[in-house]
Amino acid sequence: MTQTVDEKFELGVPNGDDRERRICQTCGFVDYRNPRIVAGSVVTKDDQILLCKRAIEPRKGFWTLPAGYMELGETIEEAAQREAREEACATIEIDRMLATYSIPRIGQVQVMFRARLASDFKAGPESLDVQLFDWKDIPWSELAFPTVVWALTHFAETRGQADFVPFGNPANTDKVTR
Amino acid sequence: MTQTVDEKFELGVPNGDDRERRICQTCGFVDYRNPRIVAGSVVTKDDQILLCKRAIEPRKGFWTLPAGYMELGETIEEAAQREAREEACATIEIDRMLATYSIPRIGQVQVMFRARLASDFKAGPESLDVQLFDWKDIPWSELAFPTVVWALTHFAETRGQADFVPFGNPANTDKVTR
Ligand SMILES: [Zn+2]
Ligand SMILES: [Zn+2]
Repeated sequence: MTQTVDEKFELGVPNGDDRERRICQTCGFVDYRNPRIVAGSVVTKDDQILLCKRAIEPRKGFWTLPAGYMELGETIEEAAQREAREEACATIEIDRMLATYSIPRIGQVQVMFRARLASDFKAGPESLDVQLFDWKDIPWSELAFPTVVWALTHFAETRGQADFVPFGNPANTDKVTR
Repeated sequence: MTQTVDEKFELGVPNGDDRERRICQTCGFVDYRNPRIVAGSVVTKDDQILLCKRAIEPRKGFWTLPAGYMELGETIEEAAQREAREEACATIEIDRMLATYSIPRIGQVQVMFRARLASDFKAGPESLDVQLFDWKDIPWSELAFPTVVWALTHFAETRGQADFVPFGNPANTDKVTR
């Protein structure tokens, strides 16, 4: 498919709106950008935790939890399951919500679940490697994003608990999220 | 500001992507549409619940909880607080997350909080009226959206509980959400 790209966005306040939006000067399209939802999960088998080594930027070569942008037409849980399938070729059973993190600086809300591995796994196209780690072997210095550290730490607090109140952003993380 | 509108979207798969997106045939802009987050709250004063009568479509004239689309640059909690301010001129103190509902049919994730009224209130520009209701006086047949019914019902289950696991979509609501 051939695609002409002649978009030219400038900031302006659309009629009937009360804040600035990106408006295309070529065609008039108003780009209402809203925060995006990342759905992911801490997936365990017995006491081991599934991590994926990123094959793509940002943070290529670093380890992360299976997670990614929610798409139209799915629930948050389905998005988390799809990401585990795409990144780790894994089927997961979602237990419950672990945490919801807001990162205004990059316009993200990350919803992380606690889940069980229900299949084999292997690296998908966005991963260089996928492995199960004992807690003591987690490569803390090679984790891709602060929220991966948060989710793993919060997960550890819920071990042995069937029910718990989901976590939010850890205290004093505003310099990371704002 | 004068705004030419010559946008003309057609479905196509952008280079490097794996699903159809709306692509503007005038300027080439790819409209990556993701689910949008609605943040809202069940706001109480003593045992009464704050409801707003909608001044705008859809469902003008029906009662709703203060809630609306999260914007860039804010946390979910800040979005819920802003909506209470805009729709009910009210300051609220958020207690904790009450529920997260996914409505794939309309591409929404609704995050509802339990909150306390911490100020006076009055109708904002998007409301015809704002009132505190005793539980027995809630206008069930005049509520704007199914998720308002869900959030109120779930809220009632948490009365007297400091901690609880947030709710998801009620069982057997797929015909509403899909
Ligand atoms: Zn354009
Ligand atoms: Zn265009």
